[in-house]
Formats: sequence, structure tokens, C-alpha cells
Amino acid sequence: MFNLKKYLGEKQAIINRMLDEIITNDSSGLSSRIVSAMNYSTTAGGKRLRPILCISACEVVGGKMEKCLKTACAIEMIHTYSLIHDDLPAMDNDDLRRGKPTCHIAFDEATAILTGDALLTLGFQVLSRNNSDLSKEDVVKRLDIIHRIAVAAGYKGMIAGQMLDILSEGKKLELEELKQLHLAKTGALIETSIYSGAVLGGGNELQIAKLLEYGHNIGLAFQVTDDILNIEGDSDFMGKAVGTDHDRDKSTYPALIGLSASKQFAATLIESAVKTLEMFDKEAEPLRAIARYVIERKK
Amino acid sequence: MFNLKKYLGEKQAIINRMLDEIITNDSSGLSSRIVSAMNYSTTAGGKRLRPILCISACEVVGGKMEKCLKTACAIEMIHTYSLIHDDLPAMDNDDLRRGKPTCHIAFDEATAILTGDALLTLGFQVLSRNNSDLSKEDVVKRLDIIHRIAVAAGYKGMIAGQMLDILSEGKKLELEELKQLHLAKTGALIETSIYSGAVLGGGNELQIAKLLEYGHNIGLAFQVTDDILNIEGDSDFMGKAVGTDHDRDKSTYPALIGLSASKQFAATLIESAVKTLEMFDKEAEPLRAIARYVIERKK
Repeated sequence: MFNLKKYLGEKQAIINRMLDEIITNDSSGLSSRIVSAMNYSTTAGGKRLRPILCISACEVVGGKMEKCLKTACAIEMIHTYSLIHDDLPAMDNDDLRRGKPTCHIAFDEATAILTGDALLTLGFQVLSRNNSDLSKEDVVKRLDIIHRIAVAAGYKGMIAGQMLDILSEGKKLELEELKQLHLAKTGALIETSIYSGAVLGGGNELQIAKLLEYGHNIGLAFQVTDDILNIEGDSDFMGKAVGTDHDRDKSTYPALIGLSASKQFAATLIESAVKTLEMFDKEAEPLRAIARYVIERKK
Repeated sequence: MFNLKKYLGEKQAIINRMLDEIITNDSSGLSSRIVSAMNYSTTAGGKRLRPILCISACEVVGGKMEKCLKTACAIEMIHTYSLIHDDLPAMDNDDLRRGKPTCHIAFDEATAILTGDALLTLGFQVLSRNNSDLSKEDVVKRLDIIHRIAVAAGYKGMIAGQMLDILSEGKKLELEELKQLHLAKTGALIETSIYSGAVLGGGNELQIAKLLEYGHNIGLAFQVTDDILNIEGDSDFMGKAVGTDHDRDKSTYPALIGLSASKQFAATLIESAVKTLEMFDKEAEPLRAIARYVIERKK
């Protein structure tokens, strides 16, 4: 029986060590406050879903984790930057994230803006670090991954999603609009995490296509589940407030189609995600278990 | 006699067209507000110093402008992002930039934060766009340039400079600290603009080293001149307020060593910059003229 808890714990430890190594590496001099704030926000206890998916996708196609570990961490830094900026007073104005004061509360607003900027930029710095023994194929892959990540994180991806999310407060979105918002805001980077791992692991076209489909479905299920947790979750356990979507009059799946239909929808997405892994044998157990975890999680 | 005004005007027009093409390309759908704000800020009448330096460095080593035009524009987008974020209320709180309302005034704070994020990310998207006919050497160069730009823009470069700038308000910096601040905040990206152009243009090691030295000197001279203009400049002509450094009790060259010594220092830097171009013949006229322009400009 596959032990997901142990698997996640092991991967998280590896990712945490690498993130620490990247961020504190040669941090002397000018940048100590930004380095402190980057460390504060990256060690605030995230689930590491994106980097773990990247590693799992790399391993499911037979690649070694080392092939994608830094890429996985770069994606986590980019994800963390987006949380820091989303939490700012001018955006979602959240004081608490994962049970700890958000970056602009622990430091200040200027530092939080710059720290987000720094994590995004450091992500690309890590992604573009060259290694003289890379083959042409490897360098081309690396460029492709940088491009995909920039698109997913950019103004047609994550940033578009956040902008829409803010603009649509107090407005009733259509179901299809809500889906597009979520795919942009959360789905694109989750998909790209999986894509990057699969490419760096040496996956073939069919494997990559199937894994992207898997990513598409769990990305959406993840967000639907977030909406559900914002109603049903335990705020102490989650380390953030619940009921905030309703207070802000936000369009969510539960608000549009009801709580029970939302749960059914998330379950269907996960079923589809698991089904797209049919071509893999037991090496896909982690990805199957993560898919189920996405909707069963309590935070 | 080399006509700098004509040269700058021609390059600016080319850069402006390309920026417009990049930003408005397929801008339908989710992202229209961000696209409007990106357009607003990139067309707000900048001097285009960084992209022009990139192109001039490419051309001085015999490269065609097409080799580096998109890179030049990516650097300008990254520069523009930094201005948008620096102007935010939590940072320098500036309402006016180049005579126009700053992004957060023309739109709102959330949009300005996201637009800065979007320009930074789009910069990396443009830099990593692959082209199937690139040689391995070309792809490696591209990766190297992405890396250099990320470092220059990152937490040890531009972001470190901005953080220090904020932290040092009301404090008296040592001259050496002020120099380090400026080299990080402005110098690093200016140097990298020149480096990128020289590499993409096919410059050899010696040429690149000399051009980097040139960039180092004009970058610092640029900032010293900014300090001087903040005292002596014509606010109508510059499109921004003067006297603000003094009001904010900021460490500047004039405050530390006096106005006349600051002018002398800037002139010496430009002399050194021109001297490093000795190995080039008349093809370096644009770079020589730009060096002189850096300290003679009125805005």
C-alpha cells in the first residue's frame, strides 16, 4: 500500500533543503532584509504541491529527481511570490497565511512587494543557470521550460487570474468564466509544474500529453476544493480565515452550483485525472494518491 | 558629424513598435486591463536608454540589430516594471512619472502591482522564446543572457538597490555605500543591457569586457546625473518633481560631496567610459555620444 504521507514528507524535506540552499547561498551584503523575507515566506509551511508534482511527473516517466529538483524549487518560489503579492493590502489584504502573519505584516509593505519581485526573479535565475555539460537537447528543453513557466505565471495565466479575481468581487460570474479564472490563476502553473518534470525526466510526447491532462484536472479540482474549504474548513487547522469568499461576495463553485454539486464536480475531475494515468503502472501511485489528496485534504 | 538626436529617435521608434507588437499581440480575453496598463506604462515616454545601449553594443561589434531587438525590449519591460513598483505608495509614493500620472494613479494600486509583475514575467517570456533554427551556441547564449538579466534585476541587483534606497532614507550613507547602492539599483541592468547586445552581436571576449567597463562607468554617471537633476533640473521639462531627494533626506552625491564635485565625478566617469572604447573606430560613435548625453541630458 502506497504511503502518501511518508512520500509527501520526504519530498517536502528535500525541497525545503534545496530552497534554503538556493536562497541563503551567498546572501551577504546588500540584500539581507530581502533574504530574510524570502526565507520567511518560503518556510511558512506550504504543502509544496507544485514542486512535488514536478518531481513525481519526472519520476513517473523514469527520470531521476535530481534532473528537476531546482526547477521544482524555482516553481515554488514563483508560487510563493504570487501569494505574497496576492496578500498585499491593495489586493486580498490578508493578514494571515498558513497560520503565520503574511509577509507585509511580518515585515512591511515595501519589503513584501520587493520580496515577491525577488522570488519571481530568483526563480528565473535558477531556471536559467547553465551547466557546461548540458547537451543541445538539454539546453533547448531548459529554454522551453522557462518559456512555459513565464507564460503560465504571466498576464495570460496566473496574473490574469488574480486580476480577474479582484475585478469580479461582487459580480456574479458565469460558470464558464469562473472555470477560466481558476485555470488561469491556479491551473496553469500546476500544469506547467507537471509538464516541466515530465520533460526534464525524458518523457515521450504521449506521456507528456497524458500528464498535462492529469494536471489540468487536478488543478481545477484543487481550486474547487479551496472554495469548499473556505466554507467547511477548520480555520485553526488551515491557518487562515474561512468564510472570506462569502464576505467578499466572490463567485465560487459552491456559490454558483451549490456545495454538494461542487463536491461531485471535484470528485469527477479527480476520477478523470486518475483515468489519464492508465498507461502507467505502479510507478504512478504517487500521482494517483496526490490526485485523491487534492480533494480530501483539510487545508 | 554623428547626429545623436536622429540616432536616438530612430532607435526609439523601432523599440516602440516592437514593444507595442509584443504587448498587444493576442491580448484578447482575460487580460485586457493588464494589457492596457502595460501599454500605458511602456508608452509613457521613456528615453529607452537600456534597449538603445543593447542595440548599440550589438552593432558596435558588427551584429545586426535584429539579433538583439527583442532582448532589448525585454530589458525595457523589466526596467518599466521596476519603475511601476518603485512609484507605489508603499515605496516612493510618486504620482507623476515622465509628466504622466503613475500607473497606480492612472489605474489603481492592485493593477499597478500586477502590471509590474506582468511586465517582469513577460520580459522573461520574450527572452526565452525559442526559434527552431537556433544553433546550440545560440541557445546557450540565450540562457546565459536570461541568467545575467535575472541576476541584475534580482535581489543582489536592482531589488537590493531599491530596498537599500528605502532603508537609507534619513540615514547618512558613506560614499562607498552610496556607490554600491547605485551600482545595484541602476548600474547592474545598464551593464547587462550592454553585455546582452555585445554577446548577441557576436562580440569577442575583449570587446565584451571593454563594453562592460563602459557600461559600468556610464551606469554610475547616469545615477550621479539623476541626483544632480533632482536639484538643478526643470521639473516641467523632466515631467517629475525636483527637490524630492532633499525633502526625503536621501543620501545623494551632491549631499555627500557637493554639487560641483558631483559634476566633476560624473564627467570623469564619462571620460573613462569613452576611453574604454579606444579599440573601436567610428562604429563606436553612437556609444561615445550616448556617454556624453548621459551627463548632458536635461531629463
